[in-house]
Amino acid sequence: MSINRRTSRDIRSESRLDVLHALLLAGEASRGDLAGVTGLSSATVATVVSDLLEGGIVTEAGLTSGRVGRPTTTLRLNGNRGRIVGIDVAETYVRAVVFDAALDERASAEVATDEHHEETDYVIDAIVLALDTALGRAGATREDVLGVGVSLPGGMQRWGAVSVVVPNATWNHIDRLRERIDLPIVVDNPLKAIATAELWFGEGRRNASMITVNLGTGVGAGIVLEGTILRGATNFAGEWGHSLLSLDGRECRCGRRGCVEAYVGAAGIQRTLGAISPEHPLAAVPMQREFIGALAAALAPPADPAVIETIEQTARYLGSAIADLVAIVNPEMIALTGWTAWALGDHLVPAVRRRVRQEAPGDSAADLAIAVSTVRGNSVATGIATIALERFLGDVGLVTTRVPTAL
Amino acid sequence: MSINRRTSRDIRSESRLDVLHALLLAGEASRGDLAGVTGLSSATVATVVSDLLEGGIVTEAGLTSGRVGRPTTTLRLNGNRGRIVGIDVAETYVRAVVFDAALDERASAEVATDEHHEETDYVIDAIVLALDTALGRAGATREDVLGVGVSLPGGMQRWGAVSVVVPNATWNHIDRLRERIDLPIVVDNPLKAIATAELWFGEGRRNASMITVNLGTGVGAGIVLEGTILRGATNFAGEWGHSLLSLDGRECRCGRRGCVEAYVGAAGIQRTLGAISPEHPLAAVPMQREFIGALAAALAPPADPAVIETIEQTARYLGSAIADLVAIVNPEMIALTGWTAWALGDHLVPAVRRRVRQEAPGDSAADLAIAVSTVRGNSVATGIATIALERFLGDVGLVTTRVPTAL
Repeated sequence: MSINRRTSRDIRSESRLDVLHALLLAGEASRGDLAGVTGLSSATVATVVSDLLEGGIVTEAGLTSGRVGRPTTTLRLNGNRGRIVGIDVAETYVRAVVFDAALDERASAEVATDEHHEETDYVIDAIVLALDTALGRAGATREDVLGVGVSLPGGMQRWGAVSVVVPNATWNHIDRLRERIDLPIVVDNPLKAIATAELWFGEGRRNASMITVNLGTGVGAGIVLEGTILRGATNFAGEWGHSLLSLDGRECRCGRRGCVEAYVGAAGIQRTLGAISPEHPLAAVPMQREFIGALAAALAPPADPAVIETIEQTARYLGSAIADLVAIVNPEMIALTGWTAWALGDHLVPAVRRRVRQEAPGDSAADLAIAVSTVRGNSVATGIATIALERFLGDVGLVTTRVPTAL
Repeated sequence: MSINRRTSRDIRSESRLDVLHALLLAGEASRGDLAGVTGLSSATVATVVSDLLEGGIVTEAGLTSGRVGRPTTTLRLNGNRGRIVGIDVAETYVRAVVFDAALDERASAEVATDEHHEETDYVIDAIVLALDTALGRAGATREDVLGVGVSLPGGMQRWGAVSVVVPNATWNHIDRLRERIDLPIVVDNPLKAIATAELWFGEGRRNASMITVNLGTGVGAGIVLEGTILRGATNFAGEWGHSLLSLDGRECRCGRRGCVEAYVGAAGIQRTLGAISPEHPLAAVPMQREFIGALAAALAPPADPAVIETIEQTARYLGSAIADLVAIVNPEMIALTGWTAWALGDHLVPAVRRRVRQEAPGDSAADLAIAVSTVRGNSVATGIATIALERFLGDVGLVTTRVPTAL
């Protein structure tokens, strides 16, 4: 039997993560506050806090005087415990964000990359440059770093070697990356990073089931069930961008025809515009983020009719594809994220909602919430840093992660 | 926070279900055997067995003499504890199966129904007739019945009213059904029943994640993750039959266009044959099970070329649609079930496997097992009876079901 058996050790670990999460959101809280927010007993909170104080993860922040009785000690995460770095390797840039151990952002650096270059060394150079620049800006040394999370595009096997969904076939050089970074690293894919960010900082814990839908060059879903990220057997779960919208439809860069990504990825949206208005100047913009930005700008009044039609058609595609996620997973909430969602989300969401309700089975979408994610900043970097922090906490024995990170 | 917190009570409940499951598969086992199979400690097994003996769920079967030491008491499920009935309401028949409390089949009865009739009373009459006939054949009285599970087609909301995916809109008359049956009933949909059967009697517990793909008039998926059936927010999870194979494609009976079911449901397969060979005599067979049976017969040498082409095309459709399940859920195993799978599975499986490997993202299907389910008999009836048994065990306080049954 390969089913994981839940033990009281898992429960202790979960209680610690719950307390950490509550502190992360509250900034500062008393033991009583933590019991209130987490639903744990006072005795459990006291034990958990004592373990976390001993591990240096939490510190006593000060005393507040309650309305009655003696003053109460408040706690906060120990930002000085070290630094965590989250690195978002996207097709068009590499962004490194330095966080303290309370996951407050301290500094960041972005290196632009050309989406048409995918050679390993080209990308690793950009990663190392972004990392070193960000650490320099944060005034941090390599000795301060507790862990580095690296989010790489494409499917990433949970165990062993890396495999890729998108054409970045050179990305099976994790060893070289590890050697060049020379710090404790954890590698995962952006879908899992985004879902982790949503779980810690967004809607993930308020819903028993939720899906983050990531819209950028690539398209994918981060599926969170009962507070846990669905990885699947080999970390491919959520590769909804490469599920079918239309059999034998548009060619996708993964080699299959008719994938969702070929319609609602940035290049797919540009293709839709090109089909609606072949001579449209925006149809020829070479860089994807520039194209999406220009599309958003062209929606300001007086709006360009071809652009409006492109948005409407994209909302239909996206709504149909999200209806499939609802048919299969039936979540409580869908949060749209990624740079296309930031730029176009407000224009897309109402039409997407209507389409999903029409297309999802029965009334499976009747109570479904669909909204742009409330997680701001680079949620890939935040999420992968959170994964690195979880890994660090696991390494020092404070939590057991039932669903291990990728590599 | 709506996340369920795991408690030691849940762990005790899981241990009881593990022991019951082990006894169900073994028939008869000693406490030592049960500890070996479940991985539970001897002390836990002793406590669990004592609770189950007290509840009359388990009895002492006899003594076996071990090779050393004194004889050992063996245990088995107490079949005499009562009867459980599982009723599979399909579009073309209603089948009631009477099980003893050890889930051994005692008797069954099937009432043929016309797939073109869907009125509530027509279907309820068939259900009551099948139930009474099966109880009579089993020599059981209504007083013997611990619970009746009824599997109804279509989406079934987890809480409150019923809703339907497929056109059986009359199926929101659960109250009338409850009144006519007048026994403790639990209602769920066939996808959840089949997944439960797979979980208790098939591949479900040997894999951390598996999907049963049900092929009949309707098409759907029962998703099992970490030993638990994925229900989703409103019990719609697994309605993959109504996810897209092809945008704006074939009309589906659910009202949407391009659903998977419109291609690989029995009527969809017949439509594929009609497209390949419009005048083919099998294209005009009015009853779906008869059509599928005739199609299987026509595959015997010398095989009919139009039928071979129909099977190949169906395997392509099914492979592409299963690849989408792999992209989104990435399970370890897919088990095909349902009467189309029994009839055509051996012909479909090799081509489906090839197609899934081609179409699933990256190498996400490299280690995926795809096979016809090993659960024999009517797995809907077995599964819904198992759900009724779980409900009964819950009612008598022996287990807590974290994921409640539908109604």
